[in-house]
Amino acid sequence: MKIAVLGTGEVGRRLAGKLVAVGHEVTLGSRTADNPAAIEWATATDAAHGTFAQAAAGAEIVLNATGGLVSLAALRAAGAENLRGKVLIDVSNPLDFSEGFPPKVVQPDGISVAEQIQAAFPEAKVVKTLNTMANEVMVDPGQVPGPHNVFLSGDDADAKAQVAGILRSFGWGDDQVMDLGDLSSARGTELFLSLWLRLMGAAGARVFNVGVLKG
Amino acid sequence: MKIAVLGTGEVGRRLAGKLVAVGHEVTLGSRTADNPAAIEWATATDAAHGTFAQAAAGAEIVLNATGGLVSLAALRAAGAENLRGKVLIDVSNPLDFSEGFPPKVVQPDGISVAEQIQAAFPEAKVVKTLNTMANEVMVDPGQVPGPHNVFLSGDDADAKAQVAGILRSFGWGDDQVMDLGDLSSARGTELFLSLWLRLMGAAGARVFNVGVLKG
Repeated sequence: MKIAVLGTGEVGRRLAGKLVAVGHEVTLGSRTADNPAAIEWATATDAAHGTFAQAAAGAEIVLNATGGLVSLAALRAAGAENLRGKVLIDVSNPLDFSEGFPPKVVQPDGISVAEQIQAAFPEAKVVKTLNTMANEVMVDPGQVPGPHNVFLSGDDADAKAQVAGILRSFGWGDDQVMDLGDLSSARGTELFLSLWLRLMGAAGARVFNVGVLKG
Repeated sequence: MKIAVLGTGEVGRRLAGKLVAVGHEVTLGSRTADNPAAIEWATATDAAHGTFAQAAAGAEIVLNATGGLVSLAALRAAGAENLRGKVLIDVSNPLDFSEGFPPKVVQPDGISVAEQIQAAFPEAKVVKTLNTMANEVMVDPGQVPGPHNVFLSGDDADAKAQVAGILRSFGWGDDQVMDLGDLSSARGTELFLSLWLRLMGAAGARVFNVGVLKG
């Protein structure tokens, strides 16, 4: 499929590369048309790059990998008309590092970034996923042995099913994909970052994940 | 040891019962001296009950199992003089259900309840633990198979070691007890409740826990 990945940071480039590897036609979108990281990535992977609007316009699915605190601005730049009716995969986290470590998870009035995006673009089908782990694990879950999980939050069942299919193509097993319910459940996965950063410290590594083990 | 468990809800009674079962001399503390739940528990277990202050006064260790939104008031009622120099195990979560489900985790200025307690009672040795799971799992981790974890947060290494010993007496293995660092890491375990409540919904059960799996 034609997929726009918005955000040229490590997360965006990693996900864009994996989407190319599993057969999608990917455009990496950035704020400007001449972003050096985007140009380098597109050249290396023989894929496309462009502005947020250029990337989103030609896409069937849009993936938001910009920082959670600037995601609304990035998606406004992409344009509501370029998001309409599309699945919008949101992997962002609203982390404020302005006061150092540990960063705060910013949820005004307790509302997740994912819900803010859905409210701003009601004709998009927002699905929150993958935001609870390092990007190395997102695209290669086999790096972590054992029964660990990736979560899905969203209001549109078909959109969640489509995203689950993409996760499977990344190597996630059906029993690893856990549907948490409607989009408000993204509050929990975003707030989890506060714990995730401490788990990373305690584990001494980025390549780990949590598994939900039942009694 | 002599342990005061403050809070007569399900969590407090469950933990108090387990502490009696593993050999401690427990007093269940409540706001009033004639709390029916405390009297019933104390009669059934042949243990003691009393006000927060009575329970804390005679204790070597104090365990706060009151609701996170009323914990400071409960501990003020217990009395700073009765907490001084003691290990104070905090298992509370500051959940606000006033607007229904899902509740919000209340952390004014991003500060955990555990840190608020430590700031209010600087001569106590606050250790946050066990607040990331259902009370059934707290006292019987074997109900969940596999490598799942319990977390420790605190500024005093000796106090954390003592609490880890109590966790071991509950059945937690050394490899299951994960030290997250100083008390500010309790921000993450408290905020995790937002996700925990959704995991409970998705799992369809209270008896589950998360495991941190490394690559």
